[in-house]
Amino acid sequence: MIDGAKEMVRDAIIRNLNIKIILSSSNTLRIAELGCSVGPNTFSAMQYIVEALKDKYLLYQDQVINFTNNIPEFQIFCNDHVTNDFNILFQSLPFDRSYYAYGVPGSFYNRLFPSRSIHFVHSSSGINWLSKIPKELVDEKSLAWNKGLIHYVGASNVEVVNAYFAQFEKDMEVFFNVRAEEIVQGGMMVLITAFSGYIRLMRFFGSSLMDLVNEGKLDESLVDSFNLPLYYPSPQDMTKVVEKNGLFSIERMELINIKSNLVDEADAKTLMTSLRSSIEGVIISHFGSKIAEEACSRTILKK
Amino acid sequence: MIDGAKEMVRDAIIRNLNIKIILSSSNTLRIAELGCSVGPNTFSAMQYIVEALKDKYLLYQDQVINFTNNIPEFQIFCNDHVTNDFNILFQSLPFDRSYYAYGVPGSFYNRLFPSRSIHFVHSSSGINWLSKIPKELVDEKSLAWNKGLIHYVGASNVEVVNAYFAQFEKDMEVFFNVRAEEIVQGGMMVLITAFSGYIRLMRFFGSSLMDLVNEGKLDESLVDSFNLPLYYPSPQDMTKVVEKNGLFSIERMELINIKSNLVDEADAKTLMTSLRSSIEGVIISHFGSKIAEEACSRTILKK
Repeated sequence: MIDGAKEMVRDAIIRNLNIKIILSSSNTLRIAELGCSVGPNTFSAMQYIVEALKDKYLLYQDQVINFTNNIPEFQIFCNDHVTNDFNILFQSLPFDRSYYAYGVPGSFYNRLFPSRSIHFVHSSSGINWLSKIPKELVDEKSLAWNKGLIHYVGASNVEVVNAYFAQFEKDMEVFFNVRAEEIVQGGMMVLITAFSGYIRLMRFFGSSLMDLVNEGKLDESLVDSFNLPLYYPSPQDMTKVVEKNGLFSIERMELINIKSNLVDEADAKTLMTSLRSSIEGVIISHFGSKIAEEACSRTILKK
Repeated sequence: MIDGAKEMVRDAIIRNLNIKIILSSSNTLRIAELGCSVGPNTFSAMQYIVEALKDKYLLYQDQVINFTNNIPEFQIFCNDHVTNDFNILFQSLPFDRSYYAYGVPGSFYNRLFPSRSIHFVHSSSGINWLSKIPKELVDEKSLAWNKGLIHYVGASNVEVVNAYFAQFEKDMEVFFNVRAEEIVQGGMMVLITAFSGYIRLMRFFGSSLMDLVNEGKLDESLVDSFNLPLYYPSPQDMTKVVEKNGLFSIERMELINIKSNLVDEADAKTLMTSLRSSIEGVIISHFGSKIAEEACSRTILKK
């Protein structure tokens, strides 16, 4: 978890989590980590959340006379797609962890847990992933055809942005509905979405692909038929989808600034490595590894 | 699950499971499958157990006036060592399953779940695996040195059998202690242990290795330093370890006969394939794949 987010999450747990309601039904706190990938970021975030929950518990204990509950036990459910490498995740689990850890295969746009069983949900960059690409983006006859681009970033056609947002809105409606059934009364969800550095990098990546088209190394139809299934919601977008759904309330929303301009090659390389680890699969399966490799190398050199 | 065991498990659930106590605290039934490997046997067993639990619930519902619980939800926790291939397990999960499925990495001789959180435990051939090989078996100076053999089966030295049983007894004491903390009051545990066909096969496997020693193809010290970490408890053994521990009571114990003599080559081959899938890892890492392969082939031809 990035440092700024850590403080916000800790503060939200201390101030807003209703531990009285939660502990009235169970002495186990169940945490869902959605989009865990293979660690290790997941583990540091989880350790941090467990510590914050323990502190919240101790504060609560100090306030209540004759409080007899033992320190709660923690279960962490690490979720990602069934194609995620859970073997690596499990083999990287910290040996001295103070929680029970489980793997949960499946899309978080479906139910993953029984009714009212989860106390805390955390997802970092998870909800940036759309459940699918809206089909009008690759339909030549549609106003939202995204010719020559691989994302809504940099698209001058507002229909493209609209199609992306419409899919995000639909996905979030489903996401909130299923989570609302799973999370207990008094529970909490923290959603962290990726930062703007990626957005610029993706535009560079798209233009690197078009350079390859212009040099005759790549067929343009392959670019036209590809769109990254990623949406980066603004605070306004988030407010809109939460209020439209109506099952959750926003306790806090913060923008955390991270150095995001590609000021030098080293920065771009670090960001690209991070981006590649998440989108490499979809890019390689569409373009093949040779083109993917070349477009990534060129992206790093762009300024 | 083998057919005879299915009926026994179903019958035990219908007759002995205290669903009233269980449903008083939760409308989710949590099942632990210990030693799940990569499926698919695990899935048919789990489906069968879920169906039996649903039937038990419906029977209970019929008996109680004003019973307002909904049909319970089911969580299945599939456990195996952290080195198990959970990716294959997850990718083989039945698409139309009527339960939430999770992976639980770790040894079942440790705690895997919070206190009083599991309603039903199932393990097929899991407890046959000792947590380790007693060191006196490979100690030349010990009375229990198991020279020229790879298991207690066929050993004329009673100290060898005693060392194996002592380890089994210690392991089961730990196993029952941790499970007793995890299982709710009124819960149930079904332990199925492997059948005698394997025992004969393992004796043949050991003698195939000794043939290779006699032909000068394998150093005898490699056989002397290897022992399979498997114990096949008799009903008397099981009664002894359960009663010694004292935290569980035996509601039912049955011997299910399965054709177990190696009457022909085809039978031996089938059994060997099944045995190999579970013990191949330990054999190859000790003897190397070439010797392991040759000893397995020879075992099938023995009568």
